Amino acid sequence: MPIKQEDGIMLKKLKKQVLEANLLLPKYNLVTFTWGNVSGIDRERGLVVIKPSGVEYDGMTVDDLVVVTLDGEQVEGDLRPSSDTPTHLELYKAFPNIGGIVHTHSQWSTTFAQSGLDIPALGTTHGDYFYGAIPCTDKMTPEAIGGEYEKETGTIIIDTFKKRNIDPDSVPAVNVHSHGPFAWGKDAIDAVHNAVVLENVAKMAMFNLLLDRNIEPMQQELLDKHYLRKHGANAYYGQK
Amino acid sequence: MPIKQEDGIMLKKLKKQVLEANLLLPKYNLVTFTWGNVSGIDRERGLVVIKPSGVEYDGMTVDDLVVVTLDGEQVEGDLRPSSDTPTHLELYKAFPNIGGIVHTHSQWSTTFAQSGLDIPALGTTHGDYFYGAIPCTDKMTPEAIGGEYEKETGTIIIDTFKKRNIDPDSVPAVNVHSHGPFAWGKDAIDAVHNAVVLENVAKMAMFNLLLDRNIEPMQQELLDKHYLRKHGANAYYGQK
Amino acid sequence: MPIKQEDGIMLKKLKKQVLEANLLLPKYNLVTFTWGNVSGIDRERGLVVIKPSGVEYDGMTVDDLVVVTLDGEQVEGDLRPSSDTPTHLELYKAFPNIGGIVHTHSQWSTTFAQSGLDIPALGTTHGDYFYGAIPCTDKMTPEAIGGEYEKETGTIIIDTFKKRNIDPDSVPAVNVHSHGPFAWGKDAIDAVHNAVVLENVAKMAMFNLLLDRNIEPMQQELLDKHYLRKHGANAYYGQK
Amino acid sequence: MPIKQEDGIMLKKLKKQVLEANLLLPKYNLVTFTWGNVSGIDRERGLVVIKPSGVEYDGMTVDDLVVVTLDGEQVEGDLRPSSDTPTHLELYKAFPNIGGIVHTHSQWSTTFAQSGLDIPALGTTHGDYFYGAIPCTDKMTPEAIGGEYEKETGTIIIDTFKKRNIDPDSVPAVNVHSHGPFAWGKDAIDAVHNAVVLENVAKMAMFNLLLDRNIEPMQQELLDKHYLRKHGANAYYGQK
Repeated sequence: MPIKQEDGIMLKKLKKQVLEANLLLPKYNLVTFTWGNVSGIDRERGLVVIKPSGVEYDGMTVDDLVVVTLDGEQVEGDLRPSSDTPTHLELYKAFPNIGGIVHTHSQWSTTFAQSGLDIPALGTTHGDYFYGAIPCTDKMTPEAIGGEYEKETGTIIIDTFKKRNIDPDSVPAVNVHSHGPFAWGKDAIDAVHNAVVLENVAKMAMFNLLLDRNIEPMQQELLDKHYLRKHGANAYYGQK
Repeated sequence: MPIKQEDGIMLKKLKKQVLEANLLLPKYNLVTFTWGNVSGIDRERGLVVIKPSGVEYDGMTVDDLVVVTLDGEQVEGDLRPSSDTPTHLELYKAFPNIGGIVHTHSQWSTTFAQSGLDIPALGTTHGDYFYGAIPCTDKMTPEAIGGEYEKETGTIIIDTFKKRNIDPDSVPAVNVHSHGPFAWGKDAIDAVHNAVVLENVAKMAMFNLLLDRNIEPMQQELLDKHYLRKHGANAYYGQK
Repeated sequence: MPIKQEDGIMLKKLKKQVLEANLLLPKYNLVTFTWGNVSGIDRERGLVVIKPSGVEYDGMTVDDLVVVTLDGEQVEGDLRPSSDTPTHLELYKAFPNIGGIVHTHSQWSTTFAQSGLDIPALGTTHGDYFYGAIPCTDKMTPEAIGGEYEKETGTIIIDTFKKRNIDPDSVPAVNVHSHGPFAWGKDAIDAVHNAVVLENVAKMAMFNLLLDRNIEPMQQELLDKHYLRKHGANAYYGQK
Repeated sequence: MPIKQEDGIMLKKLKKQVLEANLLLPKYNLVTFTWGNVSGIDRERGLVVIKPSGVEYDGMTVDDLVVVTLDGEQVEGDLRPSSDTPTHLELYKAFPNIGGIVHTHSQWSTTFAQSGLDIPALGTTHGDYFYGAIPCTDKMTPEAIGGEYEKETGTIIIDTFKKRNIDPDSVPAVNVHSHGPFAWGKDAIDAVHNAVVLENVAKMAMFNLLLDRNIEPMQQELLDKHYLRKHGANAYYGQK
């Protein structure tokens, strides 16, 4: 599939943002070595820009980024895309409002994934960004692991949100059981911001759980207040 | 309300200090992104200088700071003041000796807030700055959350100190339940220093509690000794 | 044993790599002061390049490195080799596929050593590098401690892998009881990479164990999937 | 007491070393703000060089340091000496082989002080520097706290070593109950090195205790081996 000149210009902007978002991962200590990857989508063109597989952040340029269609066809880039690309594509297809996705093995969130526990909403730091507990998926079945594994990783995330009736727009992160987090947002930068908050609240919740494994989530009224003063029609936080 | 020229000069000094205090927050790792805010008050003029809402620390200048009266009227600055401004104003009105206030979501203190636990006085590091346990407020009522929320946040802090008969001048910090800490001091810089110590003693107390949930506070005699060798008429620490 | 000119050129390359690997230890916060040491082997010549004993990383040059034969004869270098050299040599002799070894007292892994616990395989971060639990040896006998201690340290590692039927090529690290970790890899740099991952997974596993001392290891299917997508004939991760 | 010219030259060297040792405290993250202090002694002249009270490390010079006799008479320096000076002097008088002392509120060691627990010898990292558990003193009596407090702090340390028959030369650190650590060494630099190791082993021991409050100390044979390969007549670690 050839790329038209006008599309090329739009992609250039998207690539610049996806590169910047990828470079935020080491800055915020979310990754070790080449672990982790960020993608962004151009919804109009149906094109996804994603980090190449196993490449170091140090010295990465826009030319290293890979462009794929939502069906996974590679249309730009000499390198192979992140091995997690099929997971990203599933999420873009199922969650129509998101514009960027990030996957890391950030330590506190991953520890919750390894224990198979949700990250409960325990305070306003959490409630400012996530409208409820951040879910952990079930374990993947041997069939899913043995099949199209990375695509199935997307499927189990989507099923978790459906089954538990969670809105991915207001809870923009998940832990995959025994694996680690995916976070998303309106674009690639926003996705990384959510991943930073995720790690922050995971660390705090860990110690809350160590103090009391049966700790109750925060009051619903307080969660409503904090989430809604930053999101939606009646938000009043920040400059606007 | 117009500002007289002489007042403008005094405010300039205050603004410089409040800016410096705000920039200490990232330096001491007390904040993530734009979280947190510091204010300072000119008691003579009844004017409060505070950080604008949702603005990044990196590149912040004195001109970004906002000036409000104790009644919350904005008298200077093009940006909106921190959404926590009404909390600051309540505290300045109720605690007449304080000159600066800081609010953060610093991780160890916030973890205590999320567990709804006081930070007990367990050692001299605590006692050098805080003359007793750092209290955690009760949960706010649904009415308070649904009303003038940020003002009510100030009210529950003030009520906590009154009800428990704690002197805000000798215990210059509090955790708001399920939220996080406010700290204060004789000026904005001093408030941030107290917030740094708060985070420090919260981290240590967390592990003391994990070792023994029923740990006893330090001896009263030792607390007296350490607090009073640094504060009040008989202090003898430092150069003076 | 004199070194031939051609051997000298090969050794120069190996020394450069071993120096670089040693300098990665402070970069990745794996060491304090002069603790820790990395070696690399030239299998063809049977020569091992290793850090000198008790020398600071800051300012270390290739000329400080020591060259020894597999029998421990020093053939180059004015300084004494690391006191752990006999352990390295035992491992090189018993594990024929490894090209580099690193020993540190990195904190999270060492804490497992001090508790005498294996680091269980709890998630894909672990499974991407280690094909199963990272073992902790038994305590050394008084005889072994009182004998050729550093050589015996190698012996107990080798015995642990044999007795528990663990393949050192797919589980490239171990904790020595009450001591700390040794990690290895195809060369010195790879060994350090494995030591970084070891520390990473040890930290996470510590909190998983604090949450639940009886936590189950990850599913075998998931471990197979992750280990094998990065290692062996059917690997598909990264660029190749 | 006037200082002779020759003594002045010797003091200059000592001051330079004590300054360097003090500046290592922020470098190794052992202190916050002006907390902590290091001293060094010239045994021949009976003069102690120590940090001034409440002065920031940033910008500190040799001229800020204070010189006192073992009786506490200030013989040089315009600033007041550290308020902990009487503790240092007691230790110098009771422990004749030590040449430097450091006091900090480093977090992990102080947490043990707050829990009133010894730091048990759990591994070779500990055994390379400390020949047995690092003791925590009893609580000070109200009389001692109300008397010459800082001097009494020295007394309770000395009594702890006597009563428990611990050799201060082979266990060069202590925690004062509900307070924090003092460490010492052959000179000021060595004292700080021991304080760094203390913090390191305290952190690890904390998690070992959280995993198992009844953990056994390491084997005596292994402790002997590690302590003695670095200390005393048969040491063979390092270059010498």
